[in-house]
Amino acid sequence: MGGHRGQGDEDGDDTPDHHDPAARSNDPSPIYPGGVNPYHDDAVDWVVEGTGMRVAYDDFTTIDWIHDFAQERQRIRRLHHQPGLAGQIAVMYDWVQGWIVVLAVGVAAGIVAGGSDIASQWLGDIKEGYCDTALYLNRNFCCWGLDETDTCTDWVPWNSATFVVGYIFYIIFALMFATTAAYLVKTFAPYAEGSGIPEVKTILGGFVIRHYLGLETLVIKTVTLVLSTAAGLSLGKEGPLLHIACCIGNILPRIFPKFKKNEARMREILSAAASAGISVAFGAPIGGVVFSLEEMSYYFSSDTMWHSFFCAMAAAVALKLIDPFRTEKLVVFQVSYNRDWHGFEMFFYMLLGILGASDLGLWGAFFIRMNLRLAAFRKTSWLRIFPIYEVFAVCLLTAAVGYLNIFTRVQSPELLANLFRECDGGANYHGLCDEGGATLRVLSLLSASGVKGVLTILTFGLAIPAGIFMPSMVIGALFGRALGIIVQSWQLSHPGFWLFASCLPDVPCVTPGSYAMVGAAAFMGGVTRMTVSLVIIMFELTGALTYVLPIMIVVMTSKWVGDAFGKEGIFDGIILLCGYPFLDDKEQYRLNTTASQVMTPVEDIVVVTATGNTLDSLDNLLHETHYKGYPVVNSLRDMMLVGYISRTELRYAIDEARRRNLPGNTPAGNVVPILENTPAFIEFRLWMDQTPITVSHRFPMDQVIVIFRRLGVRYVLCTQHGQLLGLITKKDVLKHMASIEHPSEQETSS
Amino acid sequence: MGGHRGQGDEDGDDTPDHHDPAARSNDPSPIYPGGVNPYHDDAVDWVVEGTGMRVAYDDFTTIDWIHDFAQERQRIRRLHHQPGLAGQIAVMYDWVQGWIVVLAVGVAAGIVAGGSDIASQWLGDIKEGYCDTALYLNRNFCCWGLDETDTCTDWVPWNSATFVVGYIFYIIFALMFATTAAYLVKTFAPYAEGSGIPEVKTILGGFVIRHYLGLETLVIKTVTLVLSTAAGLSLGKEGPLLHIACCIGNILPRIFPKFKKNEARMREILSAAASAGISVAFGAPIGGVVFSLEEMSYYFSSDTMWHSFFCAMAAAVALKLIDPFRTEKLVVFQVSYNRDWHGFEMFFYMLLGILGASDLGLWGAFFIRMNLRLAAFRKTSWLRIFPIYEVFAVCLLTAAVGYLNIFTRVQSPELLANLFRECDGGANYHGLCDEGGATLRVLSLLSASGVKGVLTILTFGLAIPAGIFMPSMVIGALFGRALGIIVQSWQLSHPGFWLFASCLPDVPCVTPGSYAMVGAAAFMGGVTRMTVSLVIIMFELTGALTYVLPIMIVVMTSKWVGDAFGKEGIFDGIILLCGYPFLDDKEQYRLNTTASQVMTPVEDIVVVTATGNTLDSLDNLLHETHYKGYPVVNSLRDMMLVGYISRTELRYAIDEARRRNLPGNTPAGNVVPILENTPAFIEFRLWMDQTPITVSHRFPMDQVIVIFRRLGVRYVLCTQHGQLLGLITKKDVLKHMASIEHPSEQETSS
Repeated sequence: MGGHRGQGDEDGDDTPDHHDPAARSNDPSPIYPGGVNPYHDDAVDWVVEGTGMRVAYDDFTTIDWIHDFAQERQRIRRLHHQPGLAGQIAVMYDWVQGWIVVLAVGVAAGIVAGGSDIASQWLGDIKEGYCDTALYLNRNFCCWGLDETDTCTDWVPWNSATFVVGYIFYIIFALMFATTAAYLVKTFAPYAEGSGIPEVKTILGGFVIRHYLGLETLVIKTVTLVLSTAAGLSLGKEGPLLHIACCIGNILPRIFPKFKKNEARMREILSAAASAGISVAFGAPIGGVVFSLEEMSYYFSSDTMWHSFFCAMAAAVALKLIDPFRTEKLVVFQVSYNRDWHGFEMFFYMLLGILGASDLGLWGAFFIRMNLRLAAFRKTSWLRIFPIYEVFAVCLLTAAVGYLNIFTRVQSPELLANLFRECDGGANYHGLCDEGGATLRVLSLLSASGVKGVLTILTFGLAIPAGIFMPSMVIGALFGRALGIIVQSWQLSHPGFWLFASCLPDVPCVTPGSYAMVGAAAFMGGVTRMTVSLVIIMFELTGALTYVLPIMIVVMTSKWVGDAFGKEGIFDGIILLCGYPFLDDKEQYRLNTTASQVMTPVEDIVVVTATGNTLDSLDNLLHETHYKGYPVVNSLRDMMLVGYISRTELRYAIDEARRRNLPGNTPAGNVVPILENTPAFIEFRLWMDQTPITVSHRFPMDQVIVIFRRLGVRYVLCTQHGQLLGLITKKDVLKHMASIEHPSEQETSS
Repeated sequence: MGGHRGQGDEDGDDTPDHHDPAARSNDPSPIYPGGVNPYHDDAVDWVVEGTGMRVAYDDFTTIDWIHDFAQERQRIRRLHHQPGLAGQIAVMYDWVQGWIVVLAVGVAAGIVAGGSDIASQWLGDIKEGYCDTALYLNRNFCCWGLDETDTCTDWVPWNSATFVVGYIFYIIFALMFATTAAYLVKTFAPYAEGSGIPEVKTILGGFVIRHYLGLETLVIKTVTLVLSTAAGLSLGKEGPLLHIACCIGNILPRIFPKFKKNEARMREILSAAASAGISVAFGAPIGGVVFSLEEMSYYFSSDTMWHSFFCAMAAAVALKLIDPFRTEKLVVFQVSYNRDWHGFEMFFYMLLGILGASDLGLWGAFFIRMNLRLAAFRKTSWLRIFPIYEVFAVCLLTAAVGYLNIFTRVQSPELLANLFRECDGGANYHGLCDEGGATLRVLSLLSASGVKGVLTILTFGLAIPAGIFMPSMVIGALFGRALGIIVQSWQLSHPGFWLFASCLPDVPCVTPGSYAMVGAAAFMGGVTRMTVSLVIIMFELTGALTYVLPIMIVVMTSKWVGDAFGKEGIFDGIILLCGYPFLDDKEQYRLNTTASQVMTPVEDIVVVTATGNTLDSLDNLLHETHYKGYPVVNSLRDMMLVGYISRTELRYAIDEARRRNLPGNTPAGNVVPILENTPAFIEFRLWMDQTPITVSHRFPMDQVIVIFRRLGVRYVLCTQHGQLLGLITKKDVLKHMASIEHPSEQETSS
């Protein structure tokens, strides 16, 4: 078994000389009998690179960022080495590809968003009535050109005869839409359910889930999102739109090999697609980019940012051209408050922030807990086999209860727009601007907020596409408007009270609409723990520049309170609950351990020796063990680390050899010396990571995490004086971190 | 010399056992005779951490991010281990500090910016006249309440008698201001000169330049910025304001030890301060954050972003409350175009983008080259000893030439605001809106643009605070307005031309003001190569949401063309020219080398052995060699790597021992065994980095750079089987990268 080397030769790997260690590397082509390289020609390049060839990633494995980035650099170098005009054109073409892809992804996301807006609006209106003049028109277009105060005669509501008929029609349509959606999801694309943000975040973090961003998910999620939105369920389309945009961002770039072959590059496009998704969901291109940067992406270079910005902008422009609501504006809930806020109002705003985030059984973090508990329950209980009935039940409840209160009946975007508005010029949004009756209105708003809250908890996590942004905003806005009306009434009845000293006489002082806006931000912040991106999105949503400061302070309050009580935002909570392999930067502060306490010690590792193996022995190894990879050592005696080969690549090398009908006793090794003069041999050096990242076993774990996080490696080998002592995989790190109770983020974010 | 260990013992460091390697680490307290630890108690903590204690960073050295972050984590862990209420309060107080600091920095930056605006406006107006009713009023306040078309009688211009008197007064005041500024800079704070952005970027990248952000720089830069702006020199206040904000961000946090003691944490505050600087310079808080993220900062966590946003917002609010221009608006150059842009205009916009960036001897990159050449010339030629005369000469030229053309005479912000405006409602900005005379106006604008260009090249780099943002915007706006007028005239004279088919009859079609805005973005982009942040800043500056798309496309064009011809933006150019140790992520694509080709080989390294040294021998080593640090090996025979000790820490350990009057033959080593039973000994283990990052000598250089960049280390040791083969420092990497011609970024940014 390859005994040509002295047992004591500790320098027995392929480096011939210390003083010119690069000599071999510069001439990396392995010598084969007859000068024929049995593997394809590209292979030789990789030996210099040192990270080994990668066949492809298996499903549910993490990607090796450092390898993929190295591969990309290698590719670009090769491109630049092409001489002459052809080379220049190749470089240019390569460069253009990235821009074409993000443009196409952005435009496609805009078109899908615009189309689904139109479709869901029409279907949603059908529940309440139909257009007498043209059935294919929704209420807005049916009554086009009429003032809000006029009565539209072309639109015939189902309840024009009796209330009961309208009620029944409403429920029947809602149930039809919702169950169809659930059926489609369960039958054709189970990945289409839910918000998709936690999973997309995990994928962006380097996890491979095939089909999660596939064509069937794209189609089914788009169709079912329209249906479930139209059904009037308490859900948002923002998260699902991000997921849909990422599906587009996953499918389109694959026409170019450079993206298809490189999972790390694919994730750069996906980051851009995520920006586009938020951009079209909120009409907020800058907010989309910042959201992608802050909440979603793992690596976000300045180039990725520029591509994302372009993608988000293309999506916003496409959406604006489609103009699904015929408003000719990108600013969805444009508000124009005539009055600035007063200092005393800050107190009430902060109250909203505290409520939005409080863990005191009210909303916000409570939400997250209930949801996670429900999601866990669904995973284990009998409910998981009745998802369609479950949707049916929740939808029945939603429609039956929702119809009774105007604030739960109207579609969320319309409701939100009206809640944000100021009562000026005789407008009367759902009775919000009536004179008197404030108490009843407040009760109606509060009950709507409560009902929405319960329904949202029930809905989020059903087997249909369902986002959380819009419902949390609606709950917050309803609550905020109620508070605003209370404060307004208080001020009107006690104008002399010291708190209202800054109010001018005879001029309206309190703007309830602004409380709704601030409340929406507070509750959304409490649920998602977004920060900068939330402020920017609120700003782009409403155009209310003067309210940036209150919104900011409220988001801060909400985040601080939420952090102090709860643990993480809903998306990170789901990632933890589902055990997705996502490595968060924030958790490192608690670790007081060293690498040696986390590593799998060398005694428990199966290693491959650099020499002495045969085709059969390696094949047996793969059959007998099921590890994802194997460290390669010089010999079992000295345990000198030579490299690391992952299962997939070793499998590929063996299969390749089998395909060539090589005999089972063919020698296999890192470098097979020519001395042996065997008819054939297998050098697995090509597929081996020859320069794995190694650390001392005394390395502190928090720094090991920094290495995993920042370099994006999948494994780290612990050595001492070149000897293998242990192996740490990303999974080991995640397990270790999970075994330690998470600190409250508040304390680590200072 | 410590021959107690067998020469063949290759496992001779301090780890007793493979199977429980953490045993020693968990009991790290070195044993001293009599149980007394000669060093302070905190020391023991650091042994676990493994990166060694750090005394302080020398001037002009790079910081060790990984060490500083580890130290911070260690500190937070200690904080959390405090029991009871006192512990809770300590944690809370620690958390609050960060917010107090960014709030204070933001507010201070806003106040300084507002104050300097008021001062420079008043001084600037003094050049042209004085307020008859109250000398301390500037023109604006002197003529407060009057329409722009009215004549203001209270304001007496110097040229009210004759043109020549006004001319002479203008020049005399300008010279007075400029030379005073130059004198102050040269005498009290040489660091106050220039823009400061390249240096701040280098500092944020982890370089230590003491006093660059010191109090004297802050004071002198603020005063001289006011003077040089008032002198009417062709310079901007944006870069200097960023520098000033960073001075504040460097001085204020030092009241809290946690920032003072941790250079990495300081840089997080500096990132926030940079955001505040741009926020007050442009009235663009979001743009400030994105600028800091995109252009300035090295590491930018989501917490840093949130702190930066808060800081930028606080600065903007403070500035708004001061309201130096009494406009009650944060949007500095608010525009409200009545008309949207037309498709055909995109062609002209892109032309502006190409011109803004072109390397064809016109502007943009040409600027950079000229500037860098001039800067290099200044460094070597006799000019460097006559900086004040130089300022005098340039100022004389600026004032003498500038006074003759209205577009070069008025202060830049006023000019820019007027160039951006639409000619509606009979307004007449500097004759821009006169009927007829388009040819003359175009010539006047173009010549002003040319003159400004030459003057800016001469001014940028003088011994006074001078930014480049505003002048490049002004040049672009002048040029853009000229192009706009040309296109407008063309359209008016040939309304039937196919290009103008989309214009409606009898309605103004072309808005020259929008060309000025787009031109400003194009030229600023061409000079600085900013991308997303530039678009956001333009948007926040003007509020022109409808023009985001043209601005974006123009910035893209400008960047692409600039990248294709030139190499880098002006700030990166200066960093390269001055040889600042800034490690850019973008340059890695060209490297096809391995670590062994870059490392200083072991033969050329001076190492310290873990045993066998004495106090005197180490002292001699430090006297005889001048390296920044020394790898520690087990013995010279086996060269087994044990750790790395930097010069500063070794010096400190020796000085500490000398202070205790230890004899020169005191044994010194990594771990001194108790066997020897000497009366005293020195263990430098406490100051040693026991777990340095090691790589294989075959590691590809591009990945070594990733390690330097992402982990923020100062050195990497190359080993093979535990033996030291070489050392790579950050300087080696920078030298290696500089030795390879830089690729054009265009090709790497796809």
